[in-house]
Amino acid sequence: MNIESSSSELDKEKIIYVFGHQAPDTDTICSSIVASHLEKELGNPYQVIPCRLGPLNKESKFAIEYFKTDEPTLITNASDADEVILVDHNNFGQSAKDITKAKICKIIDHHGLSGFSCPEPIYILTEPVGCCCTVLYKLFIDNNITIPKNLAGLMLSAIISDTVLLRSQTTTKRDIKAANDLAKKAEVNLEEYGKLLLTKGTEISDISDHDLVFQDSKEFPVGGEKIQISQINSYDTKEPLDRKEGIKNEMRAYMEKNKEIVLFVFDILDIYNMNSYAIVIGPRKKAIENAYHVEVGEDGVVFL
Amino acid sequence: MNIESSSSELDKEKIIYVFGHQAPDTDTICSSIVASHLEKELGNPYQVIPCRLGPLNKESKFAIEYFKTDEPTLITNASDADEVILVDHNNFGQSAKDITKAKICKIIDHHGLSGFSCPEPIYILTEPVGCCCTVLYKLFIDNNITIPKNLAGLMLSAIISDTVLLRSQTTTKRDIKAANDLAKKAEVNLEEYGKLLLTKGTEISDISDHDLVFQDSKEFPVGGEKIQISQINSYDTKEPLDRKEGIKNEMRAYMEKNKEIVLFVFDILDIYNMNSYAIVIGPRKKAIENAYHVEVGEDGVVFL
Repeated sequence: MNIESSSSELDKEKIIYVFGHQAPDTDTICSSIVASHLEKELGNPYQVIPCRLGPLNKESKFAIEYFKTDEPTLITNASDADEVILVDHNNFGQSAKDITKAKICKIIDHHGLSGFSCPEPIYILTEPVGCCCTVLYKLFIDNNITIPKNLAGLMLSAIISDTVLLRSQTTTKRDIKAANDLAKKAEVNLEEYGKLLLTKGTEISDISDHDLVFQDSKEFPVGGEKIQISQINSYDTKEPLDRKEGIKNEMRAYMEKNKEIVLFVFDILDIYNMNSYAIVIGPRKKAIENAYHVEVGEDGVVFL
Repeated sequence: MNIESSSSELDKEKIIYVFGHQAPDTDTICSSIVASHLEKELGNPYQVIPCRLGPLNKESKFAIEYFKTDEPTLITNASDADEVILVDHNNFGQSAKDITKAKICKIIDHHGLSGFSCPEPIYILTEPVGCCCTVLYKLFIDNNITIPKNLAGLMLSAIISDTVLLRSQTTTKRDIKAANDLAKKAEVNLEEYGKLLLTKGTEISDISDHDLVFQDSKEFPVGGEKIQISQINSYDTKEPLDRKEGIKNEMRAYMEKNKEIVLFVFDILDIYNMNSYAIVIGPRKKAIENAYHVEVGEDGVVFL
């Protein structure tokens, strides 16, 4: 027996990854950071590392920079860690690719359960609130753990993001209470910071017309034909609408190369007012008019 | 539209059943009572009814009478309620027969998850502790809800029962802390009350030899033969051992009627010391001796 290697085995610190779902949004990013801090405060003696499964979106990047916090570590393999803590998801399809090989020791979430199984009991907390950080906020309060200013700011950002400044249908009293308290702790004005975060998160000035059209675009087969639907979230719909000519040029160019597409819809979701403007082109434009009982304008724009 | 019936519909109070697993033990019984009280204290405006899926065992009966509390209502159909709260289980196989038809709104448990799914988020809390009442105890503390003396006594009884007076391998620091605090609140001595509860729970003076042998008895096919194994829990093993002749008579009579049984083991589990005495009869007695490296005494009794 090699005593040296045995001893170094014993000294080896356990590593725990804390991460949210793929295509991370602000709640997933902030939850991983906040839950890692909470875990250490609750007395976990091991190395607890906030992680992410994909690139930061603009909104998360802004929040992290605004509250001067390190971004979570990008990982590809969950099973590199000794144990993992899942936040803001429990569905394996939305998790790390090798999640079935990882040892899950905790789940903190605000989604419905997706058939998760574990033979031995682990800590699982899911609550029907609008944001995973609202669940985490309560855990700080319940366990009398002080919330540092930057983490208050990140939890607040997550709530603003997931509830669109407390306006979405999923918003609960708990989210509202948490957001108000966290704004005080983060020393920001809830409405002002909320609008700033949502605006920064949906800013498109540095995105080309082509990327705007194709960053979230899906093809749907209908009969023998095809419909292409692209979507962007917007806090100020004037900005993308002012660029409608450039956007339509991209859409037209794509349809010319893909003749089977009979309808191309570019949906501009107004996340603040929860309605949409759509730019619609193609011979099957009538389908949209019939489905929504609206008339598409001559410029191809319609309010839904 | 019939205004009267519509109005009475509106006035109709929602009914919420709170229940644990089938073949209820003390943790399941006490959890249903305690969680119902907690639910009302947390502000649930509806009728919250502690329920049970089967008869009270001796231990639960003693605890409930000792702490002067009403026993939970016996139910057969979970879906009679508008919503249900599951305590101390989440496995549908251990739940009400019609559980898939019921609307589950909360789960509070200390077991591993068994593939539970719900499309919408609900409140779920599972923790790796020795007793469901240890989870419930923390919810009272976290939410600053006063624990009435009788409910402290019931939670204490559940912890004593599930952890065999804090001696089982599943006992955690949290169970120990909760038990000590609850004993104070219930105004009982932990060790004294614990021994009393476990003794009362395993008392056999009013049980016939026949019932003793067959109250928990299973048949296991091995090759073309059969093994019969019965078990009782005991706090004082002297009591059942003093009745070994009567017990053996019952075992022998059963084997005479069921010739395919080649080994009959009556296991007396000493829940305090976590070992067993077994009464063993039948031509395959040697199998026990080989498996456990022991010798069965002439009286058929062996210490395992």
